[in-house]
Amino acid sequence: MEAGGSSSPRGGIDLGGTKIEAIVVDDGNTVLGSSRHPTPSTGGPPDVAREMIGAMKAACQAAGVEPGELQGIGVGSPGVIDEASGTVSTARNLPGWEGSFPLGPTLASALETRIAIGNDVQVATDAEFALGAGKAYDSLLGVMWGTGVGGGLILDGRPWVGRGGAGEIGHMVVVIDGARCPCGRRGCMEAYAGRAAMEARARRRQEKGMNTDLFKIMKDRGRTKLTSAVWAKALERDDKLAVELIDEAIEALGAGIASAQNLLDVPAIIIGGGLGVRLGEPYVKRIRKAMQPHLFNDTNPPDVLPAGLGDLGGALGAALLVESQRAERPPVAESSPASAAAGG
Amino acid sequence: MEAGGSSSPRGGIDLGGTKIEAIVVDDGNTVLGSSRHPTPSTGGPPDVAREMIGAMKAACQAAGVEPGELQGIGVGSPGVIDEASGTVSTARNLPGWEGSFPLGPTLASALETRIAIGNDVQVATDAEFALGAGKAYDSLLGVMWGTGVGGGLILDGRPWVGRGGAGEIGHMVVVIDGARCPCGRRGCMEAYAGRAAMEARARRRQEKGMNTDLFKIMKDRGRTKLTSAVWAKALERDDKLAVELIDEAIEALGAGIASAQNLLDVPAIIIGGGLGVRLGEPYVKRIRKAMQPHLFNDTNPPDVLPAGLGDLGGALGAALLVESQRAERPPVAESSPASAAAGG
Repeated sequence: MEAGGSSSPRGGIDLGGTKIEAIVVDDGNTVLGSSRHPTPSTGGPPDVAREMIGAMKAACQAAGVEPGELQGIGVGSPGVIDEASGTVSTARNLPGWEGSFPLGPTLASALETRIAIGNDVQVATDAEFALGAGKAYDSLLGVMWGTGVGGGLILDGRPWVGRGGAGEIGHMVVVIDGARCPCGRRGCMEAYAGRAAMEARARRRQEKGMNTDLFKIMKDRGRTKLTSAVWAKALERDDKLAVELIDEAIEALGAGIASAQNLLDVPAIIIGGGLGVRLGEPYVKRIRKAMQPHLFNDTNPPDVLPAGLGDLGGALGAALLVESQRAERPPVAESSPASAAAGG
Repeated sequence: MEAGGSSSPRGGIDLGGTKIEAIVVDDGNTVLGSSRHPTPSTGGPPDVAREMIGAMKAACQAAGVEPGELQGIGVGSPGVIDEASGTVSTARNLPGWEGSFPLGPTLASALETRIAIGNDVQVATDAEFALGAGKAYDSLLGVMWGTGVGGGLILDGRPWVGRGGAGEIGHMVVVIDGARCPCGRRGCMEAYAGRAAMEARARRRQEKGMNTDLFKIMKDRGRTKLTSAVWAKALERDDKLAVELIDEAIEALGAGIASAQNLLDVPAIIIGGGLGVRLGEPYVKRIRKAMQPHLFNDTNPPDVLPAGLGDLGGALGAALLVESQRAERPPVAESSPASAAAGG
C-alpha cells in the first residue's frame, strides 16, 4: 500500500507519573487517534508496560489501524534510558522501577512494531521546537513544570543532552542549604516548584494549622494526589495556602530559569508540563516577571512562552522519535552500499 | 621570509581589571615575547588603550618583531563586544568605560595591524580547550574565578555564546534574596565568590571587629586591592577571616558550578582566572568536593581540572582569535595573501 513505509502512521506514548498518553499520528503529525490511561500506582514495570500496551491499542483502534501497521512507536520516558537496548532504569516516579527493565523489547513484542525510547522532557521539548511554540527559534530551553521540574535544550537546531544526563534544571540550586528536595538534596529549584514537593509542603503547613481547601478539592475529585487541576481549582478559589505555595514556586522558577538563561543566553524559553499547561499564560507571565530581577542581560530578555501543544506535546514528541532515531542509526541489519558491494 | 603570511607571528592581549598581559606567539603558539602592565585605575578608555599599546610594543620588542609585522593581534576584553566594529561597551571593571569606545580601530591604527576582539572569559576557555587542560574533551565549561566569576562554554567542539551574552555563570542565583552582588542583584554566585565581592565582605567584617591580616598584607605589598596573591598569602598564614570568606566562596562555587553541570552535563570543567590559577589544585579539589552534594548525576561527576595555561591562558586565547575570526569572516577590504604577494 505505502511506498517504503514513509507514509504509514506512527505512534507516540508519553509515560508520565500520573498518566499514560498514547497517540497515533499521520505524516503531518495530525492526531488520528488517542487514548489516556492512568499510570499504575502499585506493582512494577511489567504492570506499567501492560497499561502502555493497552493505551496504545486503544489509540490504534480509535485511528483505525493495527499496531503492527505503524512505522514504529516512540516513547517519552522518565528515568535513565539506554536508547540502543530500549532499557529504562531508575524511573523513580513509577512504581517499583528502581532497577532496569527492558521496556523497548517488551512493547515491541506485544505491539509488533519498532520502539524508539527517549527522555520524556527532551521529547516534549523537541515537539515544541518542531511543531509548537518554539517553531520560530533556532535554540530554546524547554521547562516542563509538573510533578518534578525538567529541562530540555535545543541549541542551534539540535537537542543538547550532554553525556545523556543534561537538562536537570529542577536540580539547579536556588537556595544553598534550602528546602529538602524529593531527590534528597537541598535547595534545588524543584524543592520549591515541583508538584510533588509542593504537595509535601502543603501537608506540613496544614499539619501546623494552616487552613486549606487543597485536600478537600482533591478528595471531591476522587484523587489521591494534588494534581494540576486541583491546584488550578484552589487558586481559582484564592485558597491562601495554595496561593502562598505557588508564589514560592514562581519565585524559585524565576531564579532558576534566569540562572539557566544567564549561562546559555537562548532566544526562547517554553514553559510546559502538567502545571505549566494547566495554569497557562497568566502564570507564564508571572514566571517571566520573576526572572527579570535575576537576568544579567536584563535589557534583552528571552521570549518566555507557554507550550503550544498542550497536554499532547509529550506524545507528539515521542512520535517524532520514530523518524529521528531511524535517521541517526540506520538499522545494522541493512547493509551499506559500500559494504554490500565489497561483501556481495 | 614567510610564505603567504601564515607563518608570521600573532599577538595576544588579555585586558584584565588589574593587569594587561601582552604576548607574541609563533605558529605553534610558543610565546616569543611577553609584557605585563598594570591596568590604569583612573582615566578612561583612551588611557587603557595607551597602556595596551605600550604593553604590546614591549612584547614585540622582546620577540624581536615590529607590531606591523604581526599577522594580527587578538584581544580578550571584558564588557559588551561588537566583533565586527571592534567597539567595546560597558566594561564596568575598567576606569570610565561605562559607554562605548572603538578599541579595535584605536589599536589597529597605533599598532598597524589587524585587531580581533573577543570576550575575555570565552577566549581563555578557548585557549584551555585548544591548548590547555581541556585538550582531551569535546565539550567543557571554563570557570574563570577572579575579580568576578565568568564562564565560557565549548559544546561539541565549538564555543557556545548564545545571542552573545552566554557564560554569565557568576550571576546564577545560589541564594534567593541572598548577598548583594557587585552587579546590583542579590544572591548571585559572584556575590560570594568574586574577588571584588569578597574584598567588600572582608572590609565589612573587619569594620564589625573581626581581626584579619588581609589589608596589612595588601599594604605591605604596595597594593590597593586584595589581589589573588594577597588572598593566597593570608590563607597560607591561616588568617581566620580569609579562611572563612574562601570557605563561603567555595561553597557558592560548588553550588553554582554543580547547577550548571546539572543543566549541561559536560565531561569537563576547567577552573582558571586569577584566584583559580593562584590557588591551584588544592582549591580546585575543594570545589570538586563542594559540587558533589549538588550533582544530580552524582555517580558520574565531570572531571574538574585546574587551568593548564596558568596566567597566560587569556593572552594565548586572544592570539588564537586572529586565526579563528579570520576563518569566520575573510576581511573584505584587506587583500588576500595571493594579491599581497602580487602587490609586494
